[in-house]
Amino acid sequence: MIKIGVIGGTGYTGVELLRLLAGHPQADLRVITSRGEAGKKVADLFPNLRGHVRLAFTEPDTKALAGCDVVFSATPNGVAMTHARELLKAGVKFIDLAADFRLKDPAVWEKWYSVPHACPELLAEAVYGLPEVNRATIKKARLVANPGCYPTAVQLGFLPLLENNLVDAQHLIADAKSGVSGAGRKAGVHTLFSEAADSMKAYAVTGHRHWPEIRQGLDAVHGKPVGLTFVPHLTPMIRGIHATLYARLTRPGADLQAVYEKRYANEPFVDVMPAGSHPETRSVRASNVCRIAVHQPQGGDTVVVLSVIDNLVKGAAGQAVQNMNILFGLDERTGLRQAGVLP
Amino acid sequence: MIKIGVIGGTGYTGVELLRLLAGHPQADLRVITSRGEAGKKVADLFPNLRGHVRLAFTEPDTKALAGCDVVFSATPNGVAMTHARELLKAGVKFIDLAADFRLKDPAVWEKWYSVPHACPELLAEAVYGLPEVNRATIKKARLVANPGCYPTAVQLGFLPLLENNLVDAQHLIADAKSGVSGAGRKAGVHTLFSEAADSMKAYAVTGHRHWPEIRQGLDAVHGKPVGLTFVPHLTPMIRGIHATLYARLTRPGADLQAVYEKRYANEPFVDVMPAGSHPETRSVRASNVCRIAVHQPQGGDTVVVLSVIDNLVKGAAGQAVQNMNILFGLDERTGLRQAGVLP
Amino acid sequence: MIKIGVIGGTGYTGVELLRLLAGHPQADLRVITSRGEAGKKVADLFPNLRGHVRLAFTEPDTKALAGCDVVFSATPNGVAMTHARELLKAGVKFIDLAADFRLKDPAVWEKWYSVPHACPELLAEAVYGLPEVNRATIKKARLVANPGCYPTAVQLGFLPLLENNLVDAQHLIADAKSGVSGAGRKAGVHTLFSEAADSMKAYAVTGHRHWPEIRQGLDAVHGKPVGLTFVPHLTPMIRGIHATLYARLTRPGADLQAVYEKRYANEPFVDVMPAGSHPETRSVRASNVCRIAVHQPQGGDTVVVLSVIDNLVKGAAGQAVQNMNILFGLDERTGLRQAGVLP
Amino acid sequence: MIKIGVIGGTGYTGVELLRLLAGHPQADLRVITSRGEAGKKVADLFPNLRGHVRLAFTEPDTKALAGCDVVFSATPNGVAMTHARELLKAGVKFIDLAADFRLKDPAVWEKWYSVPHACPELLAEAVYGLPEVNRATIKKARLVANPGCYPTAVQLGFLPLLENNLVDAQHLIADAKSGVSGAGRKAGVHTLFSEAADSMKAYAVTGHRHWPEIRQGLDAVHGKPVGLTFVPHLTPMIRGIHATLYARLTRPGADLQAVYEKRYANEPFVDVMPAGSHPETRSVRASNVCRIAVHQPQGGDTVVVLSVIDNLVKGAAGQAVQNMNILFGLDERTGLRQAGVLP
Repeated sequence: MIKIGVIGGTGYTGVELLRLLAGHPQADLRVITSRGEAGKKVADLFPNLRGHVRLAFTEPDTKALAGCDVVFSATPNGVAMTHARELLKAGVKFIDLAADFRLKDPAVWEKWYSVPHACPELLAEAVYGLPEVNRATIKKARLVANPGCYPTAVQLGFLPLLENNLVDAQHLIADAKSGVSGAGRKAGVHTLFSEAADSMKAYAVTGHRHWPEIRQGLDAVHGKPVGLTFVPHLTPMIRGIHATLYARLTRPGADLQAVYEKRYANEPFVDVMPAGSHPETRSVRASNVCRIAVHQPQGGDTVVVLSVIDNLVKGAAGQAVQNMNILFGLDERTGLRQAGVLP
Repeated sequence: MIKIGVIGGTGYTGVELLRLLAGHPQADLRVITSRGEAGKKVADLFPNLRGHVRLAFTEPDTKALAGCDVVFSATPNGVAMTHARELLKAGVKFIDLAADFRLKDPAVWEKWYSVPHACPELLAEAVYGLPEVNRATIKKARLVANPGCYPTAVQLGFLPLLENNLVDAQHLIADAKSGVSGAGRKAGVHTLFSEAADSMKAYAVTGHRHWPEIRQGLDAVHGKPVGLTFVPHLTPMIRGIHATLYARLTRPGADLQAVYEKRYANEPFVDVMPAGSHPETRSVRASNVCRIAVHQPQGGDTVVVLSVIDNLVKGAAGQAVQNMNILFGLDERTGLRQAGVLP
Repeated sequence: MIKIGVIGGTGYTGVELLRLLAGHPQADLRVITSRGEAGKKVADLFPNLRGHVRLAFTEPDTKALAGCDVVFSATPNGVAMTHARELLKAGVKFIDLAADFRLKDPAVWEKWYSVPHACPELLAEAVYGLPEVNRATIKKARLVANPGCYPTAVQLGFLPLLENNLVDAQHLIADAKSGVSGAGRKAGVHTLFSEAADSMKAYAVTGHRHWPEIRQGLDAVHGKPVGLTFVPHLTPMIRGIHATLYARLTRPGADLQAVYEKRYANEPFVDVMPAGSHPETRSVRASNVCRIAVHQPQGGDTVVVLSVIDNLVKGAAGQAVQNMNILFGLDERTGLRQAGVLP
Repeated sequence: MIKIGVIGGTGYTGVELLRLLAGHPQADLRVITSRGEAGKKVADLFPNLRGHVRLAFTEPDTKALAGCDVVFSATPNGVAMTHARELLKAGVKFIDLAADFRLKDPAVWEKWYSVPHACPELLAEAVYGLPEVNRATIKKARLVANPGCYPTAVQLGFLPLLENNLVDAQHLIADAKSGVSGAGRKAGVHTLFSEAADSMKAYAVTGHRHWPEIRQGLDAVHGKPVGLTFVPHLTPMIRGIHATLYARLTRPGADLQAVYEKRYANEPFVDVMPAGSHPETRSVRASNVCRIAVHQPQGGDTVVVLSVIDNLVKGAAGQAVQNMNILFGLDERTGLRQAGVLP
């Protein structure tokens, strides 16, 4: 059994992580900390976990966390980096579900997250936890930066095109639609039901924090900087990301379907659908799958890739558990075998 | 392993049953029949099952079904009764998720379902599959009539009051709100998204088919006919039933919280919440739990019971699997341990 | 033209009031105050009003408000009562959309709203602005207490039964379902999209502020105290209240349909539907209508009344405009003739 | 007063047209035909129109229609073309809300709509009713082809770029998200609430009927064929289209904000928002406005245009009324002045 601690389990990635760990046969959940909810039973905050999680939230306590094999940090951005050094020193594996260790360049971090990085020396060591790209390095990591939700859907969609040099990498377009849970469980006006329901809008067109993260990943694959226009949209659904990706083909004759199927043939959590398909976000609701379809409308030179995930699972908590499985040598699918909940 | 057949798995109770069976460690799914979709892969109709169910739908075939240990019928009302006799003769256990075997009196069946019953001789044998009431008889049954969704939520909510003679049983009120999936996966205007979203309405106030079913169950507990006003409402959510029950207390001093907690203390799938609670349907989304809270507002003589279930799980497919577990002597929770999906 | 001021137009009743006034041929909107948004253009906060409202929010300014013929207060509870005395002294008619002047007894106010009343001497003068009951006194009023949303739907539903002594008034039940906009446009966790969507729950079963308001209204009609159980529910829709009312008939033979049709024959905003109907909340979306149907299921002794309104229109801003029309001798329907927006 | 007939008013564009006409001061609604609902009162089918439309549906009757000044056809595709010739001969103006007269080339029509055109000789005469492009010719038209919903949002968004030769017209991308009402009020599985709610998907990526319509419009402006990738998405909202448009700037220094503001300065129903804005579909709910914002993210060479409409108003019934106003020399805004319904 793996002894597990969770820092800050009161948000949506937190409750989803707890739900997944409750069903994980190797997970021994020991500590869940929360400054705001210390003393409260987890199941009182999240009644879906009644009968599944008996712990109460406790004040952050490095000693208790240091006794774990692995600690997940499911806090807002900027918190994990204040814990990482000490826990790593204690020999604990550390998986951050926030953005603190995703960007390699501390200057880029500071520009987009508006605070200096608390442990820039760890950025080089941190492994970006996208198993489909970094499985081998994750296996040996101490510190895993779990990818963002948009970056997961967008990178998995673009990867085969870039790895095979099939498109003009200077003009990639990612039009992404996210469910509202992506904005987190924090009081705010813009994500109230009466604001977000029965309506649709783009946001942050001038610049979103996931843009440098996606670019960093695509740059690495491409071998040099890509050009990316990224437009996120707030969509009236709870969970789900639908990324619609556009690129201009430089080798129009390629068999794109075959390229995608081959790339992901051995990936347990990437499902390339048959040619002509249109994946729905609900087909991956509550499951760790990224479902992809690739189109070349009217045989033109524009490729359209449709990539869907559940932002809280493959886009957050599920991928974190997948990374834990890799870190501890388990079958990657352990605790993550559930089919999507449809309807 | 239990060899399993499913008749008619193309509706919402069907896909949910398949999802649950896919995660059930003792389930060996052998046959799924559908007249309309024969030849089509199950996972092509329901992409959430890609990688989980490899079978294709086949034409109804009694021989294939007769080779199973248990057959679930997830068809529209009126179909199961044409299969039951033959399958029982072949020694197969039969669990009907539709209404064919729920009502004991064939005249009442005919009145509410508008067709004569095809095998009235089986009605006496059929066991109403509400484990919280009939566990012992289910264990020995050949034929289980899986309860309706409203009847499950309403009966579990009223049971403790009636069993303990605490209320005026002649004036029970059940105001029930259902998600739209309760209407099934069939083309129709009234359940279109643009008709049912962002709106609310009562329906069938003059008489709903679940009214005689609920009454039959409550009558049996009460020992004589009860009076019940039942008003169902269509609610803009996919899954979930919220039953709000009202009754006048005849013994106002009773400790209702204790009554409920005692009644359900050993029930794995009924969760009595702490006094003062308000259960949300989402807390049971995709799980087999019925969550109940009991209130006595302002200390008056009216008791208010709040009872929530997922209509497709505890109200249909989950309860059917629970019944299968009982029939085959398994731990009742096998394959049904998932926490609710929240948010 | 009527010179109009609005105090606090930044919530949902505020934006709805502005939308209705923008289409009102006699409305001359002069001032909109808001402490929080002073200096900001109204249309920058509410883009639907671009091209319709050119004013900016200003700091509360009694002088500017005192120059108006009528002032609407669309603030949170407890603010209007700090403005009323002064504005009335200046000869301004005052319509409060919050609860400050709805309860006649300052002790009841203080009990339910937790602050002492700032001008209890005005409570006697204030007229409860339910035109279907108080039209004549509204006409001569200086100070109108615009009813709450639940109280409007529930009272209009029960009135004909109580006025005609048709039911046991000691055991009235109001099971009410509200869209989330009823909770207002304020940051909070419980009304986030991801909390309130695709789910249903009762709340405040132990006691809701609209309970004493409804009781006060029904008591007055009944001539003595009624008994009322009131259970509000949060429903995943933006607008709309669906009140399902239950009472036991003491004169079972009465022609209920005729009673309702007669009672509301001359009411411009109460629409009694044909026998057997089930009104949908969407049929009154964005319109000032209360739509009612009355049922007596299976000819029993329980009457079921279905009453729907748009909580922001007939339940708030529309009724306020209706009251203004009455105050100023206009046709009551002026500016309120729009049909509901369906779908 | 304008005598008005409507053919087929039982769908969503029909009920919306009736709602708008009910509030139009010059509209005298005389006839509403429907084969399926003949004899039924309009307000019985659409209760929001109770008290607003007193007519009943009648069997299609050319004589009655021929007595009107203008006839709207709000039928499925392929019906209007069987009525047009005769009504035009009778001197009636004809506005088709379906696609029958939108495409100039009968071969293209037949390819995309799978039936031969019934009156190809009228295609040349028909005026494409996008007032922002064709106002002058609409004024003199007998036959108006009211544009599709996607084509309205997409064309209004791209027009200023193409008219000013600012972009590479060979690689235009339109990523469009539509509410479910765009699929119409017809029984079907894919648009059931439980299929379409809380989920998102692209559809018809290989080819949608609005693609040739958009291309025809853009070709005309561009002066030669454009290249367009068009990906529509089904979004869980009732009304609204959000078109996100991408093009590569060929003259990167242009002041795009000024270009858009100038282009639409005198358009009553196109609202160019301030630089940096993100229009929400709900800001135009139930109103005839197209709201547009233009972005150039990170100062790169890709322009992003956000264009939102209510698909049933500016994308259908509202634009049809706008066209009627133009045809009859009325102020174009007559009956269309309502602000959007928010929230």
